[in-house]
Amino acid sequence: MINFKKTLRDNAIRAEQVLTVAVSKLPDNEVNRAIIYSLKTKGKRLRPALVYETAKLFGKDDGNIDRIAAAVEMIHTYSLIHDDLPCMDDDDFRRGMPSCHKKFGEAVAVLAGDGLLNFAAEVLLGGVCSENYFKAIGYIFECSGIFGMVGGQAIDISDKKPNDLETLDFLTENKTSKLMMAAMVATGIYCGGSAAQLDALATFAENFGKAFQASDDLLDCNDDDKVSYVKFLGKHDTKVKIAEYNDAAKDSLKIFGSADFFEELCDFNASRQY
Amino acid sequence: MINFKKTLRDNAIRAEQVLTVAVSKLPDNEVNRAIIYSLKTKGKRLRPALVYETAKLFGKDDGNIDRIAAAVEMIHTYSLIHDDLPCMDDDDFRRGMPSCHKKFGEAVAVLAGDGLLNFAAEVLLGGVCSENYFKAIGYIFECSGIFGMVGGQAIDISDKKPNDLETLDFLTENKTSKLMMAAMVATGIYCGGSAAQLDALATFAENFGKAFQASDDLLDCNDDDKVSYVKFLGKHDTKVKIAEYNDAAKDSLKIFGSADFFEELCDFNASRQY
Repeated sequence: MINFKKTLRDNAIRAEQVLTVAVSKLPDNEVNRAIIYSLKTKGKRLRPALVYETAKLFGKDDGNIDRIAAAVEMIHTYSLIHDDLPCMDDDDFRRGMPSCHKKFGEAVAVLAGDGLLNFAAEVLLGGVCSENYFKAIGYIFECSGIFGMVGGQAIDISDKKPNDLETLDFLTENKTSKLMMAAMVATGIYCGGSAAQLDALATFAENFGKAFQASDDLLDCNDDDKVSYVKFLGKHDTKVKIAEYNDAAKDSLKIFGSADFFEELCDFNASRQY
Repeated sequence: MINFKKTLRDNAIRAEQVLTVAVSKLPDNEVNRAIIYSLKTKGKRLRPALVYETAKLFGKDDGNIDRIAAAVEMIHTYSLIHDDLPCMDDDDFRRGMPSCHKKFGEAVAVLAGDGLLNFAAEVLLGGVCSENYFKAIGYIFECSGIFGMVGGQAIDISDKKPNDLETLDFLTENKTSKLMMAAMVATGIYCGGSAAQLDALATFAENFGKAFQASDDLLDCNDDDKVSYVKFLGKHDTKVKIAEYNDAAKDSLKIFGSADFFEELCDFNASRQY
C-alpha cells in the first residue's frame, strides 16, 4: 500500500519546482506576471500527478517526464484563464483568488493564456528528441485542441447545449477527460507502452475524467440552469454513475498489475464532500 | 531572373492547398467555421512564401516543409484574431472583411485563436520526426511565444509605449520580425543549414520584418497617436530607414549566392504605394 496523500503531495511539490524553474526564465512584464500568478494559484496539480504516476508504471523517470508534467499543467491553466474571461464564463474568482482578467485586465489575460499554451510547446520541445517523445507531444496537442479540449469548449459555448446524458458524456470527454488522457497516454507513449497498455491508460483517464466532472457537479449543484450530471440524473443517481465510472477506470489498469495510486485516486475523488 | 509576382502567387496557391487539406479534417462547428473563415480571408501568404523560398535555397522540398508553411500562417492568423478582439485593438475589419469576433462573437473568436495556435502544433507534429525537424519546431514556438511575438504584443498593450526608435525597433522585432524568422530560420534548421547560413536567414528576416512594418506605418500614417516609424522619423526619413533595412536584409543573403526572390521581395515591399 502507498501513502496516497503523501504521494499526491510529493508529486505536487515536484511539479511546483519544475514550473518555478520554467517561469524563472521569463522576462519581467505584466503578461508574464499574469502567467506566474495563474500558475501559482494553488491547485491540486492533478494532471502532473497523472504524468508522474504513469511514468512509475513503466519504471521511467527523466527530464522529458518533467516537461510533460509541466506542459499539461500549463495547458490546463491557460484553458482556465480563457474560460474565466467575461466573453466566456465570466468568472471573477478562481480557486478563491481573483481570476486572471480581474487582476490584470482582459487584454493581459488573453495574452497570458496564449503565452502559456505556446510556452507548453516550448517546454516540451526543449526536451531530448526521440521518435516516441515526438509522438507523445503530438498526442498532447491532439488532446488539447479542436479535436479535444478546445472542441469541448466549442460545444460548451454553443447554443446547442447537451440535453441528454450521452451528449453530456461527449462534452465531458472532450472538456475534461482529454487533458487527463494527454497526461497519461502521452507519458505511456513516451515510455514505449504497448497498444494494450495505452488503451488501458486512455480508458482510465476517460472514465476518471467523467467521475471527476460528475463529482464537481455534485459539489456545485446549486445552479439549476447549469448543464450537469446532477441535472440529468439527480444527486443519488449521479453518485451511482460516479461509482460506475470509477469501476471502469480501476478495471482498465489491471493490465499493469498493481496501480495503487490510481485506485486510491478514484476513491479519493468519490469521497470529496458533497 | 525569376518572375517574382508569379512565384509569390504560386507559393500562395500552394499554401492555400495545404491549408485547405488541413481544415478539411475539422468537424463542423462554429469555432471551426471561424477558424476556416479567418484562414481563408485573402492575405498575401507572405510567411509560407518565406518558408518555400528558404527551402529552395537548400534544394529541399517535402511534406514537412508544407507543414512549416501552414503552421506559420496559422500562428499569424491566430495572432490577428486575438489582436482584433475588443479588449485588444478592437478592430471591426480585417483585410476588408468583418473581423472574426464581429462575425462570430467574442467567445468563438477567443476559442478560434486558441484552436488555431494548437492546430499549428498538431500540423507540425504530424510530420516525419528527425532531430533537425524537432529543433525547427522548437524554434518556431520560441519565436511565436513570450520570448517573441506574444512578448511583442505584451509591450504593445502595456502602458509603457515605445518613446524612441530603439524601443520601437525592439517591439517590431518581436511583433513582426520574429514570425518571419520562424518561417525562414526554422526552415533552414530543418534543411540542415550551417550556423552562418542560419544567422544570415535570421538577419534577413529581422531586417525585412522592420522594413515591412515601416512600410505599413507609411501606408497607415493618419493616426497621430499610433506609435510608428512615421511618428518618430517623419515620412521622408522612414523611407530612408526602409532602404537601410532592405540593404541590410539583401546583404545578409549573399552567403547563398543567388537569392533573387528575397531581393525582389525587399524591392516589392519598398514600392508599396504610400
